[in-house]
Amino acid sequence: MEKKIGRQTLRLLHPPVIASHACIGGRHESRGPLASYFDELSEDAFFGEKTWEKAEATMQKRVLGRALEKAGLTFSDIDFIFAGDLLNQCIGTSFGLRDSGIPFYGLYGACSTMGEGLALAALFLDGGFAHRTAAMTSSHFCTAERQYRMPVPYGSQRTPTAQWTATAAGCTILEAGGSGPAVTHVTCGTVEDLGITDANNMGAAMAPAAAATLTAFFRDTGTKPDDYDQIVTGDLGQLGSEILRDLMEREGIVLEENYTDCGLLLFDLERQDMHCGASGCGCSASVFNGYLLRQMEEGRWNRLLFAPTGALLSPTSSFQGESIPGICHAVLIENQSERKRKDGCGEWSI
Amino acid sequence: MEKKIGRQTLRLLHPPVIASHACIGGRHESRGPLASYFDELSEDAFFGEKTWEKAEATMQKRVLGRALEKAGLTFSDIDFIFAGDLLNQCIGTSFGLRDSGIPFYGLYGACSTMGEGLALAALFLDGGFAHRTAAMTSSHFCTAERQYRMPVPYGSQRTPTAQWTATAAGCTILEAGGSGPAVTHVTCGTVEDLGITDANNMGAAMAPAAAATLTAFFRDTGTKPDDYDQIVTGDLGQLGSEILRDLMEREGIVLEENYTDCGLLLFDLERQDMHCGASGCGCSASVFNGYLLRQMEEGRWNRLLFAPTGALLSPTSSFQGESIPGICHAVLIENQSERKRKDGCGEWSI
Repeated sequence: MEKKIGRQTLRLLHPPVIASHACIGGRHESRGPLASYFDELSEDAFFGEKTWEKAEATMQKRVLGRALEKAGLTFSDIDFIFAGDLLNQCIGTSFGLRDSGIPFYGLYGACSTMGEGLALAALFLDGGFAHRTAAMTSSHFCTAERQYRMPVPYGSQRTPTAQWTATAAGCTILEAGGSGPAVTHVTCGTVEDLGITDANNMGAAMAPAAAATLTAFFRDTGTKPDDYDQIVTGDLGQLGSEILRDLMEREGIVLEENYTDCGLLLFDLERQDMHCGASGCGCSASVFNGYLLRQMEEGRWNRLLFAPTGALLSPTSSFQGESIPGICHAVLIENQSERKRKDGCGEWSI
Repeated sequence: MEKKIGRQTLRLLHPPVIASHACIGGRHESRGPLASYFDELSEDAFFGEKTWEKAEATMQKRVLGRALEKAGLTFSDIDFIFAGDLLNQCIGTSFGLRDSGIPFYGLYGACSTMGEGLALAALFLDGGFAHRTAAMTSSHFCTAERQYRMPVPYGSQRTPTAQWTATAAGCTILEAGGSGPAVTHVTCGTVEDLGITDANNMGAAMAPAAAATLTAFFRDTGTKPDDYDQIVTGDLGQLGSEILRDLMEREGIVLEENYTDCGLLLFDLERQDMHCGASGCGCSASVFNGYLLRQMEEGRWNRLLFAPTGALLSPTSSFQGESIPGICHAVLIENQSERKRKDGCGEWSI
């Protein structure tokens, strides 16, 4: 049986299971509708550190610690970790992992990092390269604002299409064999750019990438949206996910009620005045490692298509008049027990 | 046979071969001792673009085009590409790949990116996930100077330990099966930090990471330095490679005449006034994809241990008083035909 199906999708012949997962968040996350799904919530945006950047590194350190602790593991039990973040030179990750000694492949996928990390961590297990791997990412509202936009104390007005960067981190530990939700397919994204130049409208910039990856996934696997219990994109937010629906419809694919976006789930948009929704690597990472995986584990869903999206811009590229390319990496999570029950065999469904 | 040997090293059971490789460089590279190994050299630091950042993206686009052209391939022949660069948010890569449509995993490994990319591109083939993959990276003196240090027109004095960021890019295309130099082992790095805080002394900051990865490689494979024709680290430069020798000696491993560093090879340090040597992702990428692979192809060497090193700092982390963590990813390249001749069988040597 071929592992590669179509141009972009890989079918895992030995789907690794999710051995543990954890997410941590900040003050706004603790006021949002998903608060109860977090392993740790901090009122202190500095997470006990002196700067926001150090806080973000501490968030990664802590969320990795939480995920390990929940599974009774230590650093030395992880063969490889795949991680990255939004900060220049990914310092949230490199400083967060500095004392771990875990063999580390650094990623840059902007807000698609959780999807990219999960894909590579799962493929390493499927390829027989490891027994246990991890994927991790984070974002912090204050580090992102001062790096991408304006210093927070400046108090600049936010446009209606703006999204709010989550102060959150998520970590997933995957294992070869075992039981529980498993990664069965991954679809690698391509760089897509339809010419959006408004750096305050990330959802619109990333929607074409989400459309390209989801279309590739459905085409490669020969399935359609209602074959899945839930389809969740990264952080397109309100406008971005509407654009995604439109773009998909042009391809003849209708996203129904079982589609939503992490940027719409993390905050109560109206009550928390979050404009178009949440964003940042930590948005999809915390929603996935909290709310989404809980639904899988409790059997409410058995097939979850998770597709985080990233905007591959920098302030420099915007200053130089460039448009905003995007990318989206999709990962299919399936409950093996459910598939066994349904099909009467250990084969995965596609 | 286990693929994972020791804590950090993977043995490839189906070593993919190098199907094509290319490197391009700028003015200083064209004046250096390795000029004749470049596929393209440009006197124009802008590579025909209006900004240096756009130039760097164009370098990646062109070097990928060169590597494809040399093998008679097109974008659609590449299953996955692993690439990254030093620029904030890796815009050299994302804009360079924007029109390619190649499924893309973005990396951040600073100047170790060529090693990280080669490792992942090779493992994807060994795992049966693809038929052909690519690894690519770049750096540009002017983009690096204004991002990490001072604007170039300011003309600030360089310290004696400073290195010169290469304006160069390299791309390797790997293939399952075939003949020629092949990737047989990869050793994944860990984040190492011995407390160096001088951002003008990258070699010293990265040497501990090189020592950790090389020590792990020799330990995991049960080999010693003189089992290899050539051992080449990333861009430690003069001081960094001396520190590496010292650190290795403490572990009881002596690096002899068959050890050198890409940062010592790219420029004529004295004649070109390059202080401690060359640096940047493009340094090891261009030295590897030009001079080093040529030696392998022409049979002068049959076992090349290539270990690019990266400094995982950002200007922000330095401003905040942090020390500089490093990472090093090692890849072993072996000539299959030579091994077959020596051992009388198709087995790889370790």
